[in-house]
Amino acid sequence: MALTLAEKILQNHIVSCEVEWKKGAPIERGKDIAIKIDQTLTQDATGTMTYLQFETIGVPRVKTELSVSYIDHNTLQTDFKNMDDHRYLQSIAAKYGLYFSRPGNGICHQVHIETFGKPGKTLLGSDSHTPTGGGIGMIAIGAGGLDVAVAMGGGAFHLAMPKIFGVKLTGKLRKGVGAKDIILEVLRRETVKGGTLAIYEYFGEGVESLTVPQRATITNMGAELGATTSVFPSDSKTKKFLESMGRGADWTELKADEGAQYDKLIEINLDELGALAACPHNPDVINTIKSLSGKKVTQVVIGSCTNSSLDDLESVAAIVKGKHIAPGVEAGIAPGSRTTLLMASKAGILETLIEAGFRILESACGPCIGQGFAPNSEGVTLRTFNRNFKGRSGTADANVYLVSPETAAAAAVTGVFTEAETLDYEDPAYTTGTRVSMLDGQDSRLSSQNILSCATNKGMLIAPLNEEEAAKVEILRGPNIKPCPKCRDYAGRLTLPVRLKAGDNVSTDDIMPAGAKVLPLRSNIPEISKFTLTRLDETFYERSEKENFADCIVVGGENYGQGSSREHAALGPMYLGVRAILTKSFARIHKANLINYGIIPLNFVNSADYDKINQGDILELTNIEEALSTGCEFEIKLNGSTIKAVNDLAPRSREILKAGGLAAYTRNGGQ
Amino acid sequence: MALTLAEKILQNHIVSCEVEWKKGAPIERGKDIAIKIDQTLTQDATGTMTYLQFETIGVPRVKTELSVSYIDHNTLQTDFKNMDDHRYLQSIAAKYGLYFSRPGNGICHQVHIETFGKPGKTLLGSDSHTPTGGGIGMIAIGAGGLDVAVAMGGGAFHLAMPKIFGVKLTGKLRKGVGAKDIILEVLRRETVKGGTLAIYEYFGEGVESLTVPQRATITNMGAELGATTSVFPSDSKTKKFLESMGRGADWTELKADEGAQYDKLIEINLDELGALAACPHNPDVINTIKSLSGKKVTQVVIGSCTNSSLDDLESVAAIVKGKHIAPGVEAGIAPGSRTTLLMASKAGILETLIEAGFRILESACGPCIGQGFAPNSEGVTLRTFNRNFKGRSGTADANVYLVSPETAAAAAVTGVFTEAETLDYEDPAYTTGTRVSMLDGQDSRLSSQNILSCATNKGMLIAPLNEEEAAKVEILRGPNIKPCPKCRDYAGRLTLPVRLKAGDNVSTDDIMPAGAKVLPLRSNIPEISKFTLTRLDETFYERSEKENFADCIVVGGENYGQGSSREHAALGPMYLGVRAILTKSFARIHKANLINYGIIPLNFVNSADYDKINQGDILELTNIEEALSTGCEFEIKLNGSTIKAVNDLAPRSREILKAGGLAAYTRNGGQ
Repeated sequence: MALTLAEKILQNHIVSCEVEWKKGAPIERGKDIAIKIDQTLTQDATGTMTYLQFETIGVPRVKTELSVSYIDHNTLQTDFKNMDDHRYLQSIAAKYGLYFSRPGNGICHQVHIETFGKPGKTLLGSDSHTPTGGGIGMIAIGAGGLDVAVAMGGGAFHLAMPKIFGVKLTGKLRKGVGAKDIILEVLRRETVKGGTLAIYEYFGEGVESLTVPQRATITNMGAELGATTSVFPSDSKTKKFLESMGRGADWTELKADEGAQYDKLIEINLDELGALAACPHNPDVINTIKSLSGKKVTQVVIGSCTNSSLDDLESVAAIVKGKHIAPGVEAGIAPGSRTTLLMASKAGILETLIEAGFRILESACGPCIGQGFAPNSEGVTLRTFNRNFKGRSGTADANVYLVSPETAAAAAVTGVFTEAETLDYEDPAYTTGTRVSMLDGQDSRLSSQNILSCATNKGMLIAPLNEEEAAKVEILRGPNIKPCPKCRDYAGRLTLPVRLKAGDNVSTDDIMPAGAKVLPLRSNIPEISKFTLTRLDETFYERSEKENFADCIVVGGENYGQGSSREHAALGPMYLGVRAILTKSFARIHKANLINYGIIPLNFVNSADYDKINQGDILELTNIEEALSTGCEFEIKLNGSTIKAVNDLAPRSREILKAGGLAAYTRNGGQ
Repeated sequence: MALTLAEKILQNHIVSCEVEWKKGAPIERGKDIAIKIDQTLTQDATGTMTYLQFETIGVPRVKTELSVSYIDHNTLQTDFKNMDDHRYLQSIAAKYGLYFSRPGNGICHQVHIETFGKPGKTLLGSDSHTPTGGGIGMIAIGAGGLDVAVAMGGGAFHLAMPKIFGVKLTGKLRKGVGAKDIILEVLRRETVKGGTLAIYEYFGEGVESLTVPQRATITNMGAELGATTSVFPSDSKTKKFLESMGRGADWTELKADEGAQYDKLIEINLDELGALAACPHNPDVINTIKSLSGKKVTQVVIGSCTNSSLDDLESVAAIVKGKHIAPGVEAGIAPGSRTTLLMASKAGILETLIEAGFRILESACGPCIGQGFAPNSEGVTLRTFNRNFKGRSGTADANVYLVSPETAAAAAVTGVFTEAETLDYEDPAYTTGTRVSMLDGQDSRLSSQNILSCATNKGMLIAPLNEEEAAKVEILRGPNIKPCPKCRDYAGRLTLPVRLKAGDNVSTDDIMPAGAKVLPLRSNIPEISKFTLTRLDETFYERSEKENFADCIVVGGENYGQGSSREHAALGPMYLGVRAILTKSFARIHKANLINYGIIPLNFVNSADYDKINQGDILELTNIEEALSTGCEFEIKLNGSTIKAVNDLAPRSREILKAGGLAAYTRNGGQ
């Protein structure tokens, strides 16, 4: 049978499946599959906890084909904690056979695609934007750190067999409209929960016109759809890109079988697409730039794993060349990697950006994760990032709009929302009517020789040591690094007060904020747990403490736990006593993280039951043992009546919960 | 009579003097003089309070020849406060006729020397490193913000007529030894209080071989001597530098009269000078790099107003070219200004630095003021900065060594303390045996045309508006900006408990820390006052609060208040009830700030009396009224016995104290 590209790659990696399956035939959607993981990545904000867990597994060396530990989140370094964490991670990489990407080398996803990603391989990353790798035809999935630790130890990764949604692109983007606008259009149609348990697979003639960095922008922000991942074919453009990076040998051609069927089909005509923005405060609140046109802007920031490639910088440079950032605007730009920064420097792009008045920020996540460049009070900030949750920028009352680099650049020089295509400017990438990429090495400003010299300058990557040298390495543990706390013991029945009742679309930023104050505490659960759910209720920690961190439950609405892969959004609640979370629906990674840390994820059978529950009510989970053993529905008593909760947990997930979390499950020999 | 250069410039600006004087004849040292201020500068961390004060003066437009408001300290922006402050400062500049230097344009001193400084002019800045301007023959003095506000309002600046110390330089620096090593050598000989009430004036054939940026490094860090300022002649090198910057017309030749006499003479033979370091935790703990050679280093940072010029970057690039930052080291570099960054980019220097693995930080004060890049716990960090007070780096137990860019670069690539001159490297600036500067426009890598295009790209500077436009400007006040609190009422007699007894060399960082946590509160005295003296005693605020902020006194040792010009080190104590400070000696700017805020600075007549006083003792200041009226010694009763304190206050200072501070004094018509 004809398979989609996503199915083909998945099937090449399946090690077990909940149901019987045959290679080449579709697998029933929703069933638990376990896949071999070829590559893993971590970043520092999730990485310290990942490796603390990995150390307890007791494997002397990672068992993947390749594992990389990146530093890109905690680079502000306002006290000892960040650099202590860097040194811990560097020593772990040396000890256990990982590549170490030093701070300054860039954002994990950008560096990974430039340096390590290979079409057809699986990549598991402790960062929700790991799907960036889908831009070169990988199945790249974001997960909690514990899942990544297990994968490094040689364990398979379990997931529900996703639905495969096809996105057919026709036509070509106009100059001034970005790849970002494609994913914003998908978000407009699909919403932030549209992709739950699905993979978005892009195909059609429109794909051919997109450069690899453009494709990576789309798969990156596919995370905001709640999707498992997104994937593009690996074609001649992919080949050229990998050749530019000195990795032509890593290329293989990959595409869906002729006549492959998708579980849903979305069609976008790029000719008709205009510039869009995700408006405050969610990535699916989409509006046209035309409709916002003329609205005043106070800040512009370009960068993040979504839009910080050389292509992006080139588009920006073309628009701002000979102009200057408007007097009422502060503008910053962070190239995604050191390689990108070097190429931009050699191509004269960096100079143009400096001349136009951009503040050049470090090649790191920076403002996207609330690490600096916070806007003014009630500011209007245009950002090329992927998330605009309230407060994530560092300024509680700021209005964050997510836009393409083209739109950001246009607003930076005019001071107001502006469609880039209404400006008069030359863009050398569009002289032939369609976008060409400098990365193809055909551009006189940046020869393939020059690109290669940038791409192969690897001083910021430290290669794995051989086993003999690795054995001698001493792990450096600063005073900020505390062991990961144990999960609470499993109980077959729980009586739980509702400590918080939340609404729809609670993000992991709401559950455990990032930003300059909290992020440095990622290696220290007792400390970071004090910030649990503070965005929703400042008294949550205090109330938990007053109750001596007694067992409790949290109730939420739709799409609970959207956003980042941070398992701290499970660890914090767990540490404070949360034993179960009852919602209308969950985001995928967060649900998996809850299970990994022994917190039971419950969905209402009848959403209307949500309205029956008030904060402070006592919920009795009477049949946990039965539900986890048999797979029957959960029964929850409230004031004598019964609320039913779906049990869609895979058998393995139920076993993990009964073991008291994934760490204990793995220690007990669970696979 | 033959005058020193410093005396000539001061005499050209004197508007009044405590004693009779005649132009061309030396003025008695220590007597109060008032000088006309031609130019002022502020930076944002001291600026908001300066302009809050300036607003109360009621002048519609600054009365100086030129005033500039720079943003360079608070550029991390971890929440709304920093950008709100930027917007306040921008609106103030527009309203009152100042230049506004946008964030990203660079460090005030570096930008000022490139853009505005003029030989022979006076410059008053609310930053202790304002003496940088002495590198081009200005009398450039650091002062409290209130003094700068008065100067912008047209008032004269009062100071004690300084002693003039001559520093005679002979010989030439060897390749690998930096201008920084000259000032470290002066600090070794003179200590951090050696320059109290003095100006260091450099002369001799050795001066001719130094480039303008090298001279500026020396005058900049002259602040650490406790000096009023430092000054170099304005010669043909100065002319070439100004011409490079497109400002040849601003040049005038300036030097001391033949046969001028100095109050002290220091001679340094540059031929014999080797690389030095200021060791933890004070700028005058000097050691040779040779003696430290081989010691492991964990971090290197190059930048700050002391060492971030194109010359500095060029020296670093020469050393690291073709090498890479050692694996155990994190290294960052922050070009001092956007002009410098652009020039470095055009000259290929930036590329070399990126290739070597430097993290490129924003053109701003950054790590020097504890804004990011904090070292690891117990880390050994080499920094090209000017201060290494304990904890200022952001990491309480780090060991900070202040070194030249040459030494920093050598350590970065070797991972250990290394004399740069022991490394084998080519430096194009030394091909002729003596240092040449790219800024002379004679270098093929950076033509004078290219330099000019960088220097005249002024988009990051916003010029003053005309009066009509200025009148329409609305001042933007974010919620972090609180009015400056009033001083306590003058009292002729005070009974004061000793709330703290401190030791020698208490720095303004000890009195009011900077860093990422505290610096954003500079516009909000009630909030920032909570950090008063925490470095010395964490309970100081708490104890003050417990006493209902009752009047009290602080006792200190030698050189109390060394370091920064921040008047917050006076404002914080004032707000908490400190009415007087009794020490063995004071640093100049801090003493002036205390007077400006109505706190009486007292020095023991007999230093041994220091030992008689314990924290908690009650000191009675019985004759304040008499001492301030007649100039007689202060008498302080302690357990029945009397301690005497020097009264070296100028008549005007005594009047200010009687008025209850400079703001009240000025409102009452005082000059």
